[in-house]
Amino acid sequence: MEMNIALLPGDGIGPEVIAQAVKVVKAIGQKFGHKITFKEGLVGACAIDATGDPYPDATHEICAASDAVLFGAIGDPKYDNDPKAKVRPEQGLLRMRQKLGLFANVRPTFTFPSLVHKSPLKLDRVDGVDLVFFRELTGGIYFGEPRGRNEQGTKAFDTNIYSKDEIVRLARMGFEAAQKRRKLLTCVDKANVMATSRLWRETVQELAPEYPDVKVEYEFVDAVAMRLIQWPKAYDVLITENLFGDILTDEASVISGSMGLMPSASLGSKVKLFEPIHGSYPQAAGKDIANPLGTVLSASMMFDYAFGLTEEAKLISDVVNLSLAEGIVTEDIAEGGKAYKTSEVGDWLAAKIL
Amino acid sequence: MEMNIALLPGDGIGPEVIAQAVKVVKAIGQKFGHKITFKEGLVGACAIDATGDPYPDATHEICAASDAVLFGAIGDPKYDNDPKAKVRPEQGLLRMRQKLGLFANVRPTFTFPSLVHKSPLKLDRVDGVDLVFFRELTGGIYFGEPRGRNEQGTKAFDTNIYSKDEIVRLARMGFEAAQKRRKLLTCVDKANVMATSRLWRETVQELAPEYPDVKVEYEFVDAVAMRLIQWPKAYDVLITENLFGDILTDEASVISGSMGLMPSASLGSKVKLFEPIHGSYPQAAGKDIANPLGTVLSASMMFDYAFGLTEEAKLISDVVNLSLAEGIVTEDIAEGGKAYKTSEVGDWLAAKIL
Ligand SMILES: CC(C)[C@H](C(=O)O)[C@@H](O)C(=O)O
Ligand SMILES: CC(C)[C@H](C(=O)O)[C@@H](O)C(=O)O
Repeated sequence: MEMNIALLPGDGIGPEVIAQAVKVVKAIGQKFGHKITFKEGLVGACAIDATGDPYPDATHEICAASDAVLFGAIGDPKYDNDPKAKVRPEQGLLRMRQKLGLFANVRPTFTFPSLVHKSPLKLDRVDGVDLVFFRELTGGIYFGEPRGRNEQGTKAFDTNIYSKDEIVRLARMGFEAAQKRRKLLTCVDKANVMATSRLWRETVQELAPEYPDVKVEYEFVDAVAMRLIQWPKAYDVLITENLFGDILTDEASVISGSMGLMPSASLGSKVKLFEPIHGSYPQAAGKDIANPLGTVLSASMMFDYAFGLTEEAKLISDVVNLSLAEGIVTEDIAEGGKAYKTSEVGDWLAAKIL
Repeated sequence: MEMNIALLPGDGIGPEVIAQAVKVVKAIGQKFGHKITFKEGLVGACAIDATGDPYPDATHEICAASDAVLFGAIGDPKYDNDPKAKVRPEQGLLRMRQKLGLFANVRPTFTFPSLVHKSPLKLDRVDGVDLVFFRELTGGIYFGEPRGRNEQGTKAFDTNIYSKDEIVRLARMGFEAAQKRRKLLTCVDKANVMATSRLWRETVQELAPEYPDVKVEYEFVDAVAMRLIQWPKAYDVLITENLFGDILTDEASVISGSMGLMPSASLGSKVKLFEPIHGSYPQAAGKDIANPLGTVLSASMMFDYAFGLTEEAKLISDVVNLSLAEGIVTEDIAEGGKAYKTSEVGDWLAAKIL
C-alpha cells in the first residue's frame, strides 16, 4: 500500500518521540512492503517562532494532502502564564482539528500488566480496566461564538453550542465501537443544568433504538468524574462533548498508571490524526529520555484506523509489549533496572519488527 | 446565643440524615446554653410534588429569615432521564443558591485515619490529604444567558459568563483561606481555550500582590483532573469557576475514601448553607441505613462558619471521630463490625455531647 504520512513533531519532547515512531513505521513498511512517504510540518510554539502562526498554511497543506498525520505534542511554558498573549500554540491545535474536520477524539484507557502497579489506584480497581472515550473535538465551547470581553474588559463570556448533527455523528461512532466491544455506552452530560447537554441526551435517546444490542447509560459529568476513580471497570465506551471530554480523558489517563504510553486517534474525515496523550514535557526536551511508547502505539492505531491494516497494528503493539517485558524502557518506567534512551528504545523496536 | 436554623431535608435520605444533625445541634444548644429554633421547608422533588415548585417562596422566606440553612439532599431518578421535563428538582437548588447569594461553595477533602484504607487510591497518595475547594456557585454557565434552543430545536446553546467582581470576591475568600492554611493557592482554569478563564487568570494575577505570603499556581482544569489523582497532597486551596468546581469537587470527594462523611458550606451572604456532599441516594431512603456523618459534620461547619463558635464545632467533630473509633457507624463503613442504624448513630452522638 502507498501511504503519505504527515509528521508534526511540535514542541518539547515532540520531535524525539516522533523520531522513534518514524523508525517503527519505516520498519513496518519495509517488512510488509508498503511504500511510505513522510512530509514534515511545523505546529505549535515552534511554528509561532518560525512563522508567527501556530498552524501555518504550509502545514495545513501537508496534512490535507496526507493520508494520516502523526503528531507529537505542543505547548511551551512561556505562553501559559500570559493570559494576554495574542497568539498561543494551542490555537494551532484547535485550528488544525477544525480545518481537518477531526470531530472525534478516541482515547482508550487500558492496562499493561507490567505497569499496572504504577497506578495511583489500588490494583483491584484498575487491573483489567478497558474503556474508551469518544470526545467531540470540533464543537462546543472551544469554538462557539460569541466569545470574548465587553468593551470595558470587565466581563468575559464563552458560548457552548451544539447542533444535533454534530452529536449524531459522534454518538454513532460511540455506538458502533460499543457494538464491537462490551456493548455498554455511557453518555456523559450535565443535562440537569445545561441546554446543550439536554440536546445531547435527547439525541442519544433517539439513536439508541437503532442499536438494540447496546445498553445505554446516561450519567452526569460530575458523577462520572467520581465513578471513573471509584470503579473504572464499570465503563466500556463513553461519549461526551468537547470540554467534558478534555477533563475526563485526562483524568482517565492516570488510572492505568501508563500515561506515558497511552495513544489517541482523532477521526472524522479522510485525514486522520494520531498522537500520544502526554504533553510536550519541556523539562525533558532534548535529553533523549522521554518515553516514546505513547507515540509508537499511536502509530499502531494509525495502521488500524487509517489504513485498516490490523496485522501491522498488532505487530507494533506486540513489540511494545515485548520491550516492556524485557525492560527495554526509558527512565520513567525503568524502576531501578537499566534506563534506556528514547532513541535506543526506538532502535530496539524497529530492529525487532524487521 | 440565639440561632434560627432553616432545615431543608429535601429528597431521598435527606430527611433521615437531617434528623440526626438536628439531634446533635440540639444537644450542643443544651450543653452550651444556646437558644436554637428550627423551621422546616420543602425543596427539591418533594417540593415539586407538593407545590409544583422545587424552591417555593415559602421555603425561600424561611431561609432568608434564618441565620443558617441545614440542607439534606435533593434529586429523584424520575426526573433524570427526562430531558424534556419542564420542572426539575435541581432548578430549586440553583434558584436557592442565587436568591440567597451563596456565591462560594467550600468543600474540604481530608482523611479519617480509620477510613483512609477505603480510598480507591493507594495509601501513600492519600494519607494526610488536606485540601479545600472554593467553587464559584452563582455564576458561569449555570446561569448565563442566552441559553436554550433555536426555533427548530436542532441547536442548543449555553453561555458561560463571568464579571471581574464575581471572580474577585471568590478569589479573595480563597486567598484568605490559604493564608490560614499552607499558603498555596491554585487557580484552576482553561485559559488556553476560554475567554472567561483568561479573565479568571488575569484577575487572580492582579490580586496576588495583595497576598504576598500566598504562593499562587495556575493550572489547567484537565491537568488538575489528573494531578488530583496522582498526588492530591500537592494541593492546599483551589479556586475555580462553577462548572469546573462541580466536576473537580466531586472527583476530589472520592480521594479520601470518606465520601459519605464529607461536609460542605455555601457562603457569600448573611445566610449560610451547610450540606453533606453526598446525593439523595434514593435506593436507601426510608431504610434508616444512610450515613448521617456528612450532615453532622456540616452542622459542625455551621457552628464555625455561621456563628464563629469554634468550640461547639470542635466538639461535634470530636464526637464524630469517637464514633468512628468505637465503631458506632452505619453499614457503609461497618466492615464486618456491627452496623448501626442512622438514628442510632444520631442518638449516640447526641448522648456523647451531653
Ligand atoms: C492544549 C489544549 C487546547 C487541548 C484541549 O483542551 O483540547 C489539550 O488539553 C488536549 O486535550 O488535546
Ligand atoms: C444537582 C446539581 C445541579 C448540582 C450542581 O451541579 O451544582 C450538584 O451537582 C452540586 O454539585 O451541588
